[in-house]
Amino acid sequence: MIAISEIFGPTIQGEGALTGVPTVFVRTGGCDFRCSWCDTLYAVEARFKADWTPMSAEAVLAEVERLSGGRPLLITLSGGNPALQPLGDLLSLGQARGYTFAIETQGSKAQDWFARLDHLTLSPKPPSAGMAFSQRRFDACLAAAGVNTQVTLKLVIADEADYRWARDFAARYPHLPLTLQPCNPAPATPDEPARETDLDALNARLRWLVDKVTADGWFAARVLPQLHVIIWNNERGV
Amino acid sequence: MIAISEIFGPTIQGEGALTGVPTVFVRTGGCDFRCSWCDTLYAVEARFKADWTPMSAEAVLAEVERLSGGRPLLITLSGGNPALQPLGDLLSLGQARGYTFAIETQGSKAQDWFARLDHLTLSPKPPSAGMAFSQRRFDACLAAAGVNTQVTLKLVIADEADYRWARDFAARYPHLPLTLQPCNPAPATPDEPARETDLDALNARLRWLVDKVTADGWFAARVLPQLHVIIWNNERGV
Repeated sequence: MIAISEIFGPTIQGEGALTGVPTVFVRTGGCDFRCSWCDTLYAVEARFKADWTPMSAEAVLAEVERLSGGRPLLITLSGGNPALQPLGDLLSLGQARGYTFAIETQGSKAQDWFARLDHLTLSPKPPSAGMAFSQRRFDACLAAAGVNTQVTLKLVIADEADYRWARDFAARYPHLPLTLQPCNPAPATPDEPARETDLDALNARLRWLVDKVTADGWFAARVLPQLHVIIWNNERGV
Repeated sequence: MIAISEIFGPTIQGEGALTGVPTVFVRTGGCDFRCSWCDTLYAVEARFKADWTPMSAEAVLAEVERLSGGRPLLITLSGGNPALQPLGDLLSLGQARGYTFAIETQGSKAQDWFARLDHLTLSPKPPSAGMAFSQRRFDACLAAAGVNTQVTLKLVIADEADYRWARDFAARYPHLPLTLQPCNPAPATPDEPARETDLDALNARLRWLVDKVTADGWFAARVLPQLHVIIWNNERGV
């Protein structure tokens, strides 16, 4: 069974290389990380476990089909850390009906079904997140993706230290398409779900990041904001 | 010689499939169109011809190299209509030094050097632009791109009529990646260069467009705003 926090859409993907692409989100519950600026703690912290519904792959796909009117589209697997879940059967069922799959994960847990994804976004956490990094686990994720899955690196940047870390990290994977994403300055939290982020501060971070990247001639780095935050602020379910 | 309106950057591409990618813009002067909501009339209207500098391909590339510190990156050819200019030599010179090239054009004029571009964005104008459309010329642009150039369709949407037109138009080219872009509600004009757009109205158009696309199950359509307008409003040179 798959621990499901929420299934919503269709909406557009708000971040990373697939920004703007219509998709349904399947958010799983449970995470091996607890990042300082996590914007989906309701799918992370164990105290919310009772809110996560155990669902079969068939039931998850049935809900996606209901939401999409049965028209195939991109299914985005997010979390929490969706790589902790048994998602191989969901891939098989969905792909047989024309759906495509993208996953977003920190790269701490490899699964053999990574090789059957269309898109694998690996988002190792920068120093500001306060989490440890395992090179061995990350490289296992890359290896599991094989040659048919499009792998992208997405690095969240909150400050100068994150930026320096990102430069060093990305330099080790020059073959991977790279997106830099300014960190949401004030994500909603379970205790303050209606918290609004400061869009001016977010925009300032975005300008700063564009200035850094262009001044440094770091032309392999694509700079993209969380578009859903710009459109809907911290609202859930969009 | 190439009629140059401005060369600026590095900044990030603000619109279309390459949104977020670091680039230098080479904006040519002169256009065969005069769209109602054009945001670069200073590179379009004949009354600004005296502001356009005739430059050789060598001189254009020298300026791009100065701006980029000699590090190869994406050069975005925009206008006006850059397809009116003799850009074949610029492609040869730039590609020999590792630069890549994208062009944005309405698809009214084909050039044999389209086949040597990395990216060709065709942006035929919707009804709200008030311009005529030539199927023959558009298809000549597609043919000129050949098989090695990545062609993308970018359709600007200002209202319901544009949306309906876009659905019909895109249905004729199902093999082309498609981006829908909400029209800037208040672009700067030469007579009011400091005019600020209404970001709330832009955001409302963006939400409306996402809602339309998802409600209609039009999942091949990627919805992307002009990110530079969100970041820098109508400012020039960014």
